[in-house]
Amino acid sequence: MSDITRIALDAMGGDNAPGEIVKGAVEAVQKRNDIKILLTGKEEVLKKELSGYTYPAEQIEIVNASEVIETAEPPVKAIRGKKDSSIVVAMKMVKKGEADAFVSAGSTGAVLVGGQVLVGRIKGVERPPLAPLFPTVKGASLLIDCGANVDARPSHLVQFAKMGSIYMESVMGVKNPTVGIVNIGAEEEKGNALVKETFPLLKACDDINFIGSVEARDIPYGAADVIVCEAFVGNVILKLYEGVGGALISKIKGGMMSSLRSKIGALLVKPALKETLKDFDLSEHGGAPLLGLNGLVVKTHGSSTSREICNSIIQCVTFREQKINEKIKAAIQQETQENLE
Amino acid sequence: MSDITRIALDAMGGDNAPGEIVKGAVEAVQKRNDIKILLTGKEEVLKKELSGYTYPAEQIEIVNASEVIETAEPPVKAIRGKKDSSIVVAMKMVKKGEADAFVSAGSTGAVLVGGQVLVGRIKGVERPPLAPLFPTVKGASLLIDCGANVDARPSHLVQFAKMGSIYMESVMGVKNPTVGIVNIGAEEEKGNALVKETFPLLKACDDINFIGSVEARDIPYGAADVIVCEAFVGNVILKLYEGVGGALISKIKGGMMSSLRSKIGALLVKPALKETLKDFDLSEHGGAPLLGLNGLVVKTHGSSTSREICNSIIQCVTFREQKINEKIKAAIQQETQENLE
Repeated sequence: MSDITRIALDAMGGDNAPGEIVKGAVEAVQKRNDIKILLTGKEEVLKKELSGYTYPAEQIEIVNASEVIETAEPPVKAIRGKKDSSIVVAMKMVKKGEADAFVSAGSTGAVLVGGQVLVGRIKGVERPPLAPLFPTVKGASLLIDCGANVDARPSHLVQFAKMGSIYMESVMGVKNPTVGIVNIGAEEEKGNALVKETFPLLKACDDINFIGSVEARDIPYGAADVIVCEAFVGNVILKLYEGVGGALISKIKGGMMSSLRSKIGALLVKPALKETLKDFDLSEHGGAPLLGLNGLVVKTHGSSTSREICNSIIQCVTFREQKINEKIKAAIQQETQENLE
Repeated sequence: MSDITRIALDAMGGDNAPGEIVKGAVEAVQKRNDIKILLTGKEEVLKKELSGYTYPAEQIEIVNASEVIETAEPPVKAIRGKKDSSIVVAMKMVKKGEADAFVSAGSTGAVLVGGQVLVGRIKGVERPPLAPLFPTVKGASLLIDCGANVDARPSHLVQFAKMGSIYMESVMGVKNPTVGIVNIGAEEEKGNALVKETFPLLKACDDINFIGSVEARDIPYGAADVIVCEAFVGNVILKLYEGVGGALISKIKGGMMSSLRSKIGALLVKPALKETLKDFDLSEHGGAPLLGLNGLVVKTHGSSTSREICNSIIQCVTFREQKINEKIKAAIQQETQENLE
C-alpha cells in the first residue's frame, strides 16, 4: 500500500460549492503531505477557483465531470442518468481503486444510492449505514444508522453495532466502546417490535460491549459511544439535535440583548461561550462515513464550509491507515461463519 | 353541568409525592374557586400534609387509598392487582362520573393502562394518544403521540391529527391549527412505510389543516401547531428535547464560570437569561393529556413540583369547559360515517 491516501472530492456538491469545497481541499494539502486530492467537477470552473491559491500542485488534480446532481433530483434516476456527474465520476474512481475515499457535501440520497450501486457493499453486509459523530457532554458518540435505510430489520441493527464499534475503536481511539440501543425505557421488555427483537441479539454478541437500552434524554450526556437505531429514528435524533441547539442558542442570544445590563454581560461572557458552543457544534465533527462499502464514502453537511471539508478529508487518512474496511470484512465473515455453525 | 370542575389528584405519584402534590392542590384552590380537588392517597399522611396550609376546606377532599403503584412495577399487573391504589381509586371516580378529570405524576405506564382499562376509550377511538405541549421559538406545539402506543397504524395517526387539532383549537385557542407529520425529508415520497401510507390519508382529511411533512430540525422553530408521529418517535423527540436543552444549558453555565471575566458577565446576564430559559422549560407547559378517553386523564412529569401540578389542575378546567371530549366524539363519529359511505 502506498503511503498516500487518495481522496476523490465532489467539488460541485453542497450549498457552498465549488468555492468552499476547493478552499477545503487547499487547506487539507497545506496541512498534510500524505494525501492527494482528485477534485471532480467542471474543469474550467475548478481551474479558476484553484488559481487564487498557493499550494503543492502535485497534491491536487482536477478530474473533469461535466454534470452536477442537484439535491432535489430523485437519487436513483440521477445516479443512473448523469454518468458524467461529479458524484458518479468520483465514485467510479473509488470502485476502480484509483481513489481510496470519496467525500461529498452534495445530495445525501445520491451519495447513499451511489455508494451501494457504484462502490458496492462488502460481502455479507446487508445494509450500509450512515454513521455521523455528534457532540455530547463527554466528547462525541457515533449515531448509526441515520439516514440510509428506513424500516430496518434486527439483523441490520446488529451489523450496525459491530461496524460502529470498529469505527469508534479504530478511528476515534475509544477502547472497548460501549454500545446502546435507542429505546423508550431502560428495561429490556420496553420498546417497539424492532427493538424488542434486536435487544437479545445484541446481548448475545460477544464482540461488542453492549450496555442495553439508552433513552433519548441521556444521549447528549454521552450515554454510550455507539448509539444504535434504525434510520428514521436516527434522522430524527440528528436533526432535532441540530434544531434544539440552534433554537436554544438563538433564544439565549435574544435574552442577552434584552437589556443594557445583559448586553454588557453578554460582551463579557462571549469569548468563553463561543469556546463552549464550539464543542457542541455538529459540523466540528467532520463528515459521516457510509460504512460497509468496498471503499470509504463520507457525506458532509450540505452547508459545509472549507473547515468541515478539510476535517473530513483528514478523517479519511485515519480510516485508511486503520484498515477499517478490512476489520469490518473480518467481523462480518466471523458472523456469517457463526450463523452457519 | 355544575360550574365546578372536580379533579381527582393522585397524591402519591411522582418523585416529590406527597409534599409537592398536596402543595400544588392548595395553590390551585387558592387561585380558583371553581374547582374541587379529590386527593387520593393514604388518609393519615395527606391529613398531616394539609394541616400545614390555610385554604378553603370545602375545595379539597381526601379520598383514602391504601396502596401505591411504584414506577418500576409492570403497569398491567399493578392496575389489576392494586385495586386500592391512589391511581385506581382516582380513575374509578372518573369512570363513575364522580370526577371530571384525573391528574397524576406517577407511573406513566400505569396511567396509560389505567386510562384505557378503567376510564375507557370514546367509542370509535382506536388508540388514546399521550399529547404533551412543548416549547418552541414561537410558543408551543402539541406532540401527539408520545408514549402510549408503539407500532401504530396509519388510521391511528389520522385520529391523532384530528384529536390534536381539536385540543390546540379549543384549549390553546389556536385558530385553524396547522398539522405536520414527522418525516425525514420534506417531499411526499420520503419516509418509512408508516409515514408514506399515512401522508395521503392526512392530505384527504378536510377537517384538519394539514401542511405536510415536518423535519425534526424545524420542530423547535414551531414548524406546526400539531406534530403527528407514532409513539416511539414521539418519545424520542420529547426526551431528546429535554436532554439536549439540559446538556447545552449545563455546558453554557460551565463556560460562564470558566474565567473571572465571564463570571462577572454571567452575573449581569443571569436575570434576562433566566426569563428566556423559562420559555423553553418543558415543565412550564403543564401535564400531557391522554386524549380520546371517557373523561380527562392528565400525566405530569415524574419530577413535578407544586407549580406544574397547579398548572395541570387549572388546565383541566378549560378542557372541561371547552367540551373537548364531546368535540372528539363528534369528529370520530363523522369519520366512522364517512368510512361507511
